[in-house]
Amino acid sequence: MPSRLQGIFTPMLAPLDMEGRIHEAELRRFINWLIASGVHGLYPNGSTGEFARLTLQERQLIVKITCDEARGRVPVLAGAAEANVRETLAACELYHSYGATAVAIVSPFYYRLSPESLYAHFREIALHSPIDVTLYNIPMFASPIDVPTIQRLAEFEKVVGIKDSSGDVAFMMRMIAAVRPLRPDFTFLTGWDCVLVPMLVAGADGGTNAASNVAPELMRRLYDMVRAGQIEEAMPLQRRILELFDMMLYQFEFPDGFRAGVEMRGFDFGRSRQPQTPQQQADRARLKDALQCLIADAGLVAPPAGGCPVKPAPAAAEAKDVETIVYGVMEVLHKKGLL
Amino acid sequence: MPSRLQGIFTPMLAPLDMEGRIHEAELRRFINWLIASGVHGLYPNGSTGEFARLTLQERQLIVKITCDEARGRVPVLAGAAEANVRETLAACELYHSYGATAVAIVSPFYYRLSPESLYAHFREIALHSPIDVTLYNIPMFASPIDVPTIQRLAEFEKVVGIKDSSGDVAFMMRMIAAVRPLRPDFTFLTGWDCVLVPMLVAGADGGTNAASNVAPELMRRLYDMVRAGQIEEAMPLQRRILELFDMMLYQFEFPDGFRAGVEMRGFDFGRSRQPQTPQQQADRARLKDALQCLIADAGLVAPPAGGCPVKPAPAAAEAKDVETIVYGVMEVLHKKGLL
Amino acid sequence: MPSRLQGIFTPMLAPLDMEGRIHEAELRRFINWLIASGVHGLYPNGSTGEFARLTLQERQLIVKITCDEARGRVPVLAGAAEANVRETLAACELYHSYGATAVAIVSPFYYRLSPESLYAHFREIALHSPIDVTLYNIPMFASPIDVPTIQRLAEFEKVVGIKDSSGDVAFMMRMIAAVRPLRPDFTFLTGWDCVLVPMLVAGADGGTNAASNVAPELMRRLYDMVRAGQIEEAMPLQRRILELFDMMLYQFEFPDGFRAGVEMRGFDFGRSRQPQTPQQQADRARLKDALQCLIADAGLVAPPAGGCPVKPAPAAAEAKDVETIVYGVMEVLHKKGLL
Amino acid sequence: MPSRLQGIFTPMLAPLDMEGRIHEAELRRFINWLIASGVHGLYPNGSTGEFARLTLQERQLIVKITCDEARGRVPVLAGAAEANVRETLAACELYHSYGATAVAIVSPFYYRLSPESLYAHFREIALHSPIDVTLYNIPMFASPIDVPTIQRLAEFEKVVGIKDSSGDVAFMMRMIAAVRPLRPDFTFLTGWDCVLVPMLVAGADGGTNAASNVAPELMRRLYDMVRAGQIEEAMPLQRRILELFDMMLYQFEFPDGFRAGVEMRGFDFGRSRQPQTPQQQADRARLKDALQCLIADAGLVAPPAGGCPVKPAPAAAEAKDVETIVYGVMEVLHKKGLL
Repeated sequence: MPSRLQGIFTPMLAPLDMEGRIHEAELRRFINWLIASGVHGLYPNGSTGEFARLTLQERQLIVKITCDEARGRVPVLAGAAEANVRETLAACELYHSYGATAVAIVSPFYYRLSPESLYAHFREIALHSPIDVTLYNIPMFASPIDVPTIQRLAEFEKVVGIKDSSGDVAFMMRMIAAVRPLRPDFTFLTGWDCVLVPMLVAGADGGTNAASNVAPELMRRLYDMVRAGQIEEAMPLQRRILELFDMMLYQFEFPDGFRAGVEMRGFDFGRSRQPQTPQQQADRARLKDALQCLIADAGLVAPPAGGCPVKPAPAAAEAKDVETIVYGVMEVLHKKGLL
Repeated sequence: MPSRLQGIFTPMLAPLDMEGRIHEAELRRFINWLIASGVHGLYPNGSTGEFARLTLQERQLIVKITCDEARGRVPVLAGAAEANVRETLAACELYHSYGATAVAIVSPFYYRLSPESLYAHFREIALHSPIDVTLYNIPMFASPIDVPTIQRLAEFEKVVGIKDSSGDVAFMMRMIAAVRPLRPDFTFLTGWDCVLVPMLVAGADGGTNAASNVAPELMRRLYDMVRAGQIEEAMPLQRRILELFDMMLYQFEFPDGFRAGVEMRGFDFGRSRQPQTPQQQADRARLKDALQCLIADAGLVAPPAGGCPVKPAPAAAEAKDVETIVYGVMEVLHKKGLL
Repeated sequence: MPSRLQGIFTPMLAPLDMEGRIHEAELRRFINWLIASGVHGLYPNGSTGEFARLTLQERQLIVKITCDEARGRVPVLAGAAEANVRETLAACELYHSYGATAVAIVSPFYYRLSPESLYAHFREIALHSPIDVTLYNIPMFASPIDVPTIQRLAEFEKVVGIKDSSGDVAFMMRMIAAVRPLRPDFTFLTGWDCVLVPMLVAGADGGTNAASNVAPELMRRLYDMVRAGQIEEAMPLQRRILELFDMMLYQFEFPDGFRAGVEMRGFDFGRSRQPQTPQQQADRARLKDALQCLIADAGLVAPPAGGCPVKPAPAAAEAKDVETIVYGVMEVLHKKGLL
Repeated sequence: MPSRLQGIFTPMLAPLDMEGRIHEAELRRFINWLIASGVHGLYPNGSTGEFARLTLQERQLIVKITCDEARGRVPVLAGAAEANVRETLAACELYHSYGATAVAIVSPFYYRLSPESLYAHFREIALHSPIDVTLYNIPMFASPIDVPTIQRLAEFEKVVGIKDSSGDVAFMMRMIAAVRPLRPDFTFLTGWDCVLVPMLVAGADGGTNAASNVAPELMRRLYDMVRAGQIEEAMPLQRRILELFDMMLYQFEFPDGFRAGVEMRGFDFGRSRQPQTPQQQADRARLKDALQCLIADAGLVAPPAGGCPVKPAPAAAEAKDVETIVYGVMEVLHKKGLL
């Protein structure tokens, strides 16, 4: 029986140079740093890697560089979803030739497919792919894959696992209950960093965690603690990851919050391809400072030059201040006749 | 500092007699059985108790009987939401006089309120209730309460906790991170039985779990195992609860699946107030048998007279059979011109 | 064949006196004003009438007063949904005795029922109600009723129509296509004032329109124009109603924006039962002024003492101002460490 | 002032040959047939054209052929959305050089962008595109564009219109109210065929209607009738379109139901790129027959060889039959232990 994929896989951000091209040197430096920091595997061309904003040629280049630089030190799980089955299979073949360990294929997006069509889609891939396939379920962005369909697809030997980014612990348990008895070698990875500990407790094998771009040491430590049975001890670190993850995920357009985090760790990943208004750029600069404070607090980097605010006073007080200010603003807007 | 509510609270089903009235004798017998089976508290007039299908007088009667029969052996958390603040406060006063420990107040439903209105609503209640109040968040049925609003409401001394039925472990972690530093005595209960272990790991104090109507011994055992640090050992039992919970929740209209389960434990809870078609009645009879097999398997009851099916063969085979049959049906429907 | 209900039915707001009780005198005055203003029927205890925030006794009182004051001048469609089938049937009987023309029964809320259960619920009511029943579909608040279920329920003679507040014109057309061939006497009413003309074009018989609390003359005129085939001519008035409806619906918690509108027409409907924060009260006062300007512009009332702003300059300019202000605010919030 | 785009634009299906490549000859034949059948414009690479399942090279080829074959007889609105702004602008330039009239750019999908990011995205395109741009809003598949953002984008001269596939007539009215005063030349097209008449009544300039692939004559006639003020007379035809549209849209994966319709009109558009299970293929064959009956009924084609069922008897009877059959099936499934 083949062994499962396990541990922390980094869904790598895509570094861009000043002309907006893939920044190969920085990518290679990043890969080495991730491996040195303890991640168990690399996952190029995921959602965090903005695969949907890259060209085919760029996606191919990123996988080529990743496999080349990884040099077999850690497994590479390569995002291989393309516009249709034929193009996806071509990517599977190419990434297989590059030496990837497996591919991850997000369920079709834009159109929302029925379970029967999802089955037909992945079946075709499973029958013809030369490389192991992990399904990728991310219902907020792509056609949701339900448990019976996962179970049907687990009959294909080439389908070896699933990455789930629903964040739903009960769904993870249902998938495992439906599939593990039939396929003990099937891998279950979670993409929801803020509940990694509960997911591992629930039976997941690991995670493809965007936060491991920014704090790979912490994600690795968290994983190791759970595997050592130190679950209660792991929770304070999990709560810190929650705070970091929420700030990067919700306080800016995904995945640019994570991109800001990586810059703070000393990498030059360039500007996102998604244009930003001047105001968004200012917001992002502020987010970076706040992030730096958060990670400085975890001992990973120095605090920003301007210093960090003292840890929040009781939040209730803040809420009132915000309320006062917001009401003041609405007053102004109203006086100007804008509300 | 007052101590938190902790452990397994049973959101009690409402027993009806042959005329469709509250079945007092059966309710009293049920309460004693629950206490003897180890639940930590009783929770009348919750969603499982179908408070929304009862009259005001019936809701009052149920709390009265529950407080009377509990006789202080376990705390009583009484559902007290009524049509408006004035009526809700009247219920708070009455249930306080009955000796309830606290009330649970679901956020307003039908209309979906803004966070500001939810705050205004609960603030009014918090200022005038003579009895401790727990908020009740159940976004699938009622106006969702967000974390900042919970934080604002936690400033009121009378607000002592929240019951959350979102099933979202990350949300539980966010609530706890926002509120516990300010209010170490604030109670967090989960209503999502199938992830009780992950929720407890994430910091919850316990659960108000519909499954504890049917398998109180198992829910109590699960809670005790986690509290004893036996988390890995608890997971097989958690998976069994998942299977039971899913069957009762998803294979029939809520909460009649749970009602079927309780009957199986020897209680005569009568017919639901929600009318059923003949077909639904047949489905429910079959569900009861399937449930009996599941609980017999857990050693709590004898299997049904007709015996239980052998544990499912590899599900993939089944899926195919279903497919074949469904296709056959569609063929027939088409021939009849109905599709 | 019985004739269909047709025209504009007012889902009447519920007037409250200073003690928060039903304000009978004002209700009677309002009813007479509505009839004099041309509405075709009265609809007490709808969503706009906040039935869910009233007690059973108050709902009964409102229907009693309405039937009494209408004195057969216009039909009364009385909201009769109660906690369960038995209570609902009791309301049907009572309202029948009061002289209501028909009842409107919203589909069950809080719990979301399956089509089969909705069918069982309304079937039971249809079989035993002494008074004609209209279904009430409002998917944003209550269990959605789908077309096949409406079709099944249209087989019962006592089910004579449906009020739909989905605002979906295609859904209206699908309902009519499915039911009218079987039941030419079946009434279709829309609750989405802002598309009354398109709905009438699509085949609806009329509307139960919250805006007719505030501008009954305009709603009646709009209806008459469509019936006279002056569809293009009706559109400017429809656009004005859209503006009014959107302001009352979206700029304040429903239905308090409509309550503000009615006050402007000279009725004292008191404070809502839903508590408001001081800020909300200030917002509401401003909304009332803005509403007054809008209706003054339509020639129905005098402008507010402070005058009305000149009609908006090109909105794009405004949008920029808002942006500038909002960015300024975020800057302040950030400096205070609140963002 | 430039004139608006008006009338029926066909979002053309993409014909594939037996090897799955773009079928150029059939595409040219189809274009000529559409023009001869009266459509006002052509819209290649829309959702119906499955742009997301084609390669960049294929999308370019389709626009090239379309512009070449149209030869200026009708305007060409070319779908030009690519993976990022740079690639999208490259497509704008290329399609401009091909002679397209304007491009349609769907809002970014996969990631769900905030209004501010949508603005930044389209602003960048508007500033650099050499060709007129229409926005494309389709909230079920891509990031929804709200009214204020449309209003802000309408300030750019190159942004000349919007195609909206929400199907929401009120939203159409709100867009028009917000934008037309500023930009009388701005075009509003609806992609929701089943409510074309209400949309035109509400002020839309026309539609990009998938049904015009299958019944271009009817869509053109419907448009002409409304423009001639024959609104009531148009409704029977609109109802027929509703029936056709619903069958093609809901009874099979989009857009393969429309593909089946086009085959029926005598075009060989090949198999979809989305794989189908054998059962799906059988379903599709049956759909084609049902469609043929529907269109035969409209006088456009001959009925299928096997004849058509007599027009449905009262549907209520059918519903009962279906119920009986479905219950029978569930009985069988249960006996087999599959339910």
